[in-house]
Amino acid sequence: MSSIYHGHLTVSIFGQSHAPAIGVTVDGLPAGEEVDLEELQAFLNRRAPGTGSWSTTRKEADRPEILAGLDKGRTCGAPLAAVIRNTNTRSKDYENLRDVPRPGHADYTAQVKYGGFQDVAGGGHFSGRLTAPLCIAGGICKQILARQGIYVGAHIAAVGTIADRAYDPVDLTQEDLLAPGRKPFPVLDDQAGLAMQRAIEVAKGELDSLGGVIQCAVLGLPAGLGDPMLDGMENRIARLVFAIPAVKGVDFGAGFAAAALRGSENNDAFYMDGSQVKTRTNHAGGILGGITNGMPLVFRVAVKPTPSIARPQKSVSLSRGENTILEIHGRHDPCIVPRAVPCVEAAAAIAVYDALLEQQERSRQP
Amino acid sequence: MSSIYHGHLTVSIFGQSHAPAIGVTVDGLPAGEEVDLEELQAFLNRRAPGTGSWSTTRKEADRPEILAGLDKGRTCGAPLAAVIRNTNTRSKDYENLRDVPRPGHADYTAQVKYGGFQDVAGGGHFSGRLTAPLCIAGGICKQILARQGIYVGAHIAAVGTIADRAYDPVDLTQEDLLAPGRKPFPVLDDQAGLAMQRAIEVAKGELDSLGGVIQCAVLGLPAGLGDPMLDGMENRIARLVFAIPAVKGVDFGAGFAAAALRGSENNDAFYMDGSQVKTRTNHAGGILGGITNGMPLVFRVAVKPTPSIARPQKSVSLSRGENTILEIHGRHDPCIVPRAVPCVEAAAAIAVYDALLEQQERSRQP
Amino acid sequence: MSSIYHGHLTVSIFGQSHAPAIGVTVDGLPAGEEVDLEELQAFLNRRAPGTGSWSTTRKEADRPEILAGLDKGRTCGAPLAAVIRNTNTRSKDYENLRDVPRPGHADYTAQVKYGGFQDVAGGGHFSGRLTAPLCIAGGICKQILARQGIYVGAHIAAVGTIADRAYDPVDLTQEDLLAPGRKPFPVLDDQAGLAMQRAIEVAKGELDSLGGVIQCAVLGLPAGLGDPMLDGMENRIARLVFAIPAVKGVDFGAGFAAAALRGSENNDAFYMDGSQVKTRTNHAGGILGGITNGMPLVFRVAVKPTPSIARPQKSVSLSRGENTILEIHGRHDPCIVPRAVPCVEAAAAIAVYDALLEQQERSRQP
Amino acid sequence: MSSIYHGHLTVSIFGQSHAPAIGVTVDGLPAGEEVDLEELQAFLNRRAPGTGSWSTTRKEADRPEILAGLDKGRTCGAPLAAVIRNTNTRSKDYENLRDVPRPGHADYTAQVKYGGFQDVAGGGHFSGRLTAPLCIAGGICKQILARQGIYVGAHIAAVGTIADRAYDPVDLTQEDLLAPGRKPFPVLDDQAGLAMQRAIEVAKGELDSLGGVIQCAVLGLPAGLGDPMLDGMENRIARLVFAIPAVKGVDFGAGFAAAALRGSENNDAFYMDGSQVKTRTNHAGGILGGITNGMPLVFRVAVKPTPSIARPQKSVSLSRGENTILEIHGRHDPCIVPRAVPCVEAAAAIAVYDALLEQQERSRQP
Repeated sequence: MSSIYHGHLTVSIFGQSHAPAIGVTVDGLPAGEEVDLEELQAFLNRRAPGTGSWSTTRKEADRPEILAGLDKGRTCGAPLAAVIRNTNTRSKDYENLRDVPRPGHADYTAQVKYGGFQDVAGGGHFSGRLTAPLCIAGGICKQILARQGIYVGAHIAAVGTIADRAYDPVDLTQEDLLAPGRKPFPVLDDQAGLAMQRAIEVAKGELDSLGGVIQCAVLGLPAGLGDPMLDGMENRIARLVFAIPAVKGVDFGAGFAAAALRGSENNDAFYMDGSQVKTRTNHAGGILGGITNGMPLVFRVAVKPTPSIARPQKSVSLSRGENTILEIHGRHDPCIVPRAVPCVEAAAAIAVYDALLEQQERSRQP
Repeated sequence: MSSIYHGHLTVSIFGQSHAPAIGVTVDGLPAGEEVDLEELQAFLNRRAPGTGSWSTTRKEADRPEILAGLDKGRTCGAPLAAVIRNTNTRSKDYENLRDVPRPGHADYTAQVKYGGFQDVAGGGHFSGRLTAPLCIAGGICKQILARQGIYVGAHIAAVGTIADRAYDPVDLTQEDLLAPGRKPFPVLDDQAGLAMQRAIEVAKGELDSLGGVIQCAVLGLPAGLGDPMLDGMENRIARLVFAIPAVKGVDFGAGFAAAALRGSENNDAFYMDGSQVKTRTNHAGGILGGITNGMPLVFRVAVKPTPSIARPQKSVSLSRGENTILEIHGRHDPCIVPRAVPCVEAAAAIAVYDALLEQQERSRQP
Repeated sequence: MSSIYHGHLTVSIFGQSHAPAIGVTVDGLPAGEEVDLEELQAFLNRRAPGTGSWSTTRKEADRPEILAGLDKGRTCGAPLAAVIRNTNTRSKDYENLRDVPRPGHADYTAQVKYGGFQDVAGGGHFSGRLTAPLCIAGGICKQILARQGIYVGAHIAAVGTIADRAYDPVDLTQEDLLAPGRKPFPVLDDQAGLAMQRAIEVAKGELDSLGGVIQCAVLGLPAGLGDPMLDGMENRIARLVFAIPAVKGVDFGAGFAAAALRGSENNDAFYMDGSQVKTRTNHAGGILGGITNGMPLVFRVAVKPTPSIARPQKSVSLSRGENTILEIHGRHDPCIVPRAVPCVEAAAAIAVYDALLEQQERSRQP
Repeated sequence: MSSIYHGHLTVSIFGQSHAPAIGVTVDGLPAGEEVDLEELQAFLNRRAPGTGSWSTTRKEADRPEILAGLDKGRTCGAPLAAVIRNTNTRSKDYENLRDVPRPGHADYTAQVKYGGFQDVAGGGHFSGRLTAPLCIAGGICKQILARQGIYVGAHIAAVGTIADRAYDPVDLTQEDLLAPGRKPFPVLDDQAGLAMQRAIEVAKGELDSLGGVIQCAVLGLPAGLGDPMLDGMENRIARLVFAIPAVKGVDFGAGFAAAALRGSENNDAFYMDGSQVKTRTNHAGGILGGITNGMPLVFRVAVKPTPSIARPQKSVSLSRGENTILEIHGRHDPCIVPRAVPCVEAAAAIAVYDALLEQQERSRQP
């Protein structure tokens, strides 16, 4: 079940970086939902490589073809299937990596798990390219959610040690939520963004790479989505964001910072705003007991620095059983964080829409 | 699917805090595995309340009865089912909370989701008591893993702002791993532990509560467990630790700190240790591409401060639609972190054993 | 995943015939549904042993205790768990069967699968007793369905070569549907029922047993339930009825008889009955493309003769690797068909309610 | 979850008859398994239309393209994805069917379920074409099973009222098992086959269609595959064969005929054949308690007559709410049974391989 999210929606991702194609199937979409392919393409373009100095120079159109599941531009009840052809592949770059695994990559663990039968070209199924199908599924969910007044946005919260300002967890507006996604470098504070870009260029010049943090929020959620224990919003979102290869941590609301607060500080006091129940703070990140409380759902994701760096690195030769030095050639992002922003939105959109479908299922008043 | 982990093992948790019982079923255990009930009881005792000043005074034996799945002390291939009777319940403490939700609890979100039909007594299905069945399932997995040389341990990494020293992520010994679990207050550095206990007492005296961080590690794992994308070790563990009510974050290896490192710092260089492939650092937390690499699997979990505090708090009356002040009576832990330590171990043990079963399934050499 | 139905409802059955208890958990029931325990008991009594000459003389109250999932008599959103204690067990009857497997039973296959660790007493997890938890889950679904005007009924269509008349697949009334379930011997035609009972007594007198066929129908179903291909109503119902140990076949509508018809005969012509679309015949059994069409859903189930017979039978000694003769002592039903009738209803009720929940999930008009 | 088989293998089918493509993903295949594409094509050709008088004249190459999951001709651990382009489509044939549903088809039920948004062209996702992806998945499983000495075969047991001889359920040879699959008209007794073909031609000449029965067997299975209750071999196979659109019944071993036998006749006596446990008869169809017993696994499937017939048929106009007469034009099989034979084999192969993977998972001796 390596690449399947199996809930009320089933999202099944396939492909290797240099296979004929990558793609996704989405089972469980209600019939009649419009899919705006131009809007989907615009969303995919946000994760496309090659649009900034921080990015690899590999250019791929990443134009999905919808093979099934649509009729006259709307979902038809049948599973949706979409593929992206892999065209700009240079497999010779990678063959020697079968013996000498790249530090920070899955080369070694895949070698052990698959007994040498894994596809190593371009990272195979472990490639960051596999987030493109995730974005197809998530982009479609985002469109359906937006028509119900639910909006998903994200921004770069930090690159290395340089921080963007955070979303306002209480009074977040739709404009603030979505503004970063419209920029080539998705931040709230463009000055911070420029500093981040400079830091990336410096790291690149030193044949190195940077990591960062992404903050994501969902606005317009009704209270009552998600389940206790194993299908809470945290569980669902965590399961999906860790599908993004470089993600190594996730926290919700105050998250790790909450661990240092006292209960009297961390508890979000309820109050009535007209007929609506709201909280004055949002350390819970909009989730109590796994279930949305109607406040903005807010979480952060830690992204490790790109493991592919051009410096010589210490590794081993698996066939000879000895230490060796590895030099990675090819094209790589010095910082994957900007391109990971729409991927995090996609993961959140799938999780949220999955919970929304579940809520409809159980909503009959007995 | 609120309370089910559905992988190669299926762990299904049921119960409410003041229902006749809480319990768990575990489907998919191989036949013939011994279950040492005394060892299981000792493990459950680690999460039992009432053993320290930081804990609630509610006393429950928490003695599980195995209803099915064992024959002559061994798994028999049929689903294992275990229950713990709820005996020490005082339901009248809770009835008025149906109208006035406690900040930081699931009272409000459950009210919306279940339309007022939820069981509110003692937090119902959202109670921390539901981690006892998680510990039954996890405790059994721990025993089976230990017989295969795989050990799971955890300790309090921080209470509030007071930190324990961390596990050595590279040279962690079995002794260091398991030592905290044998202490009433599970830390590595007992001086830090004393400081933590004092801090908890201070907070308690001020009618307040503290949160903290738990660090967990798994030793002896073979390389090759876990899957890319949606069933990686991170995804599985994250899904399970967020089943523990107060958990608000999880990160693996360097985790959020990795976001501030450069690739040249964060990449773990491979080297040969005799015939074994190892890494000199372990920022990856033993996981590359979702798959174990044979190094210690290490992760941290953020635990929020107990939301139940005796101070008056601002809330709302849902029936009257107006603001009000809430005072919570009853028995509560001023810091849940010590009792959450075995729960985190249980979550890790289930995730790891699930992945181990999967590896056996796929291991036939073609 | 041996004993779990995992759909929009998750029904997880546990227990062995002579373990402390048998039971079931049901996850996914909407909150607020009333559960009438007396009605449930009455339903369970229909499968209880000891009420006729065709039945084993083992007496068990089969009184379920609801451990969780109810609050004030209604579902509360948390998983429902129920157990039945095993009280009237005589384990010594079975021990010698570990070496000499009973023909027609799972003794041999369990021995191979579980390597001798299986619980053999009373058939262990393979016992017909495990249909009692199935009936608890199904009985609850039946109650919820009935409140929505959906009724499930079944009758003995045949015992050996003696047939009852069939349900009218087109004009089936609620009275005809439910009448058999109110009788001690659930048939439509009591004359046929008497003949069946005589045949069972004859077989019993000859130390033999009889099989039969059960016909089940569901009335009041809206059109549109079920899915194409792998989650059609046929797939769901088939998966559930084969959980009943003695079931060896299932067909829908004209079923196997349809294979001998021509298309012009088998096709059910549509017509308008006022504003309702109906069909003049119902060879489809109310299902087209896996989806209900609003006509009665009708299917049949083949039940093999009870394998436990008192005659000496040829078997083998697994330990000695040689042929031997086996005599089965103990208490057994000479014909399991009457007691299997409510089990088939339970299976149908779970499948139908699962599909109904799914329909609600997808029903938002975009 | 309409089109997903979710077990140890996950098989996810997508496509509509006249969409750009149909296809399948298979997740969970072990790495290193060879996939012989020519052999797969030969298998797919057995279900291809246009090779006999009993078949539609629509010609499609049905050449699958493997998009992902293979490297150097072997499975690489990543999900396998394959598509078949739809090229020979004539959508205009179908548009008027949106209002006037064809008897025996899913037009009406899909209209209700999907609110008019379903893809009607060529039957959309309900088309028999969707069995081609099932055959891709099943054909790959067949190859892997054959390398382990497990063989799956099937033949036409009956067309209308004309019967082929049955497989010998006890002494079935590999030659007998596989012979029908090598013939253009897959029967054991070619004289019966000629009679069937004549009957089909007669029915076709009378603008009518015929149904039939398919018998399938699996040879070489080890004892011990499958699980009690909900994941028995019967449950798995039933769930998969009902994915084939025209299937309306399934029974195992003696099946419905067992209902008329006595226990003393139906029980299969065990005996030792050298060191092997065998049974002298095989009324159980090789399955006891859901688990294989090492004898041939044998089952039958009922196939209804093709609902598309050229005769005028009674139907309704959904828009006008009145009765009408429908004439279906286009190309249709007068008897789908011959082409369904490999589909049944595919369903069986997936179910068996799924159970085999599960057995490996649980096989560690404690």
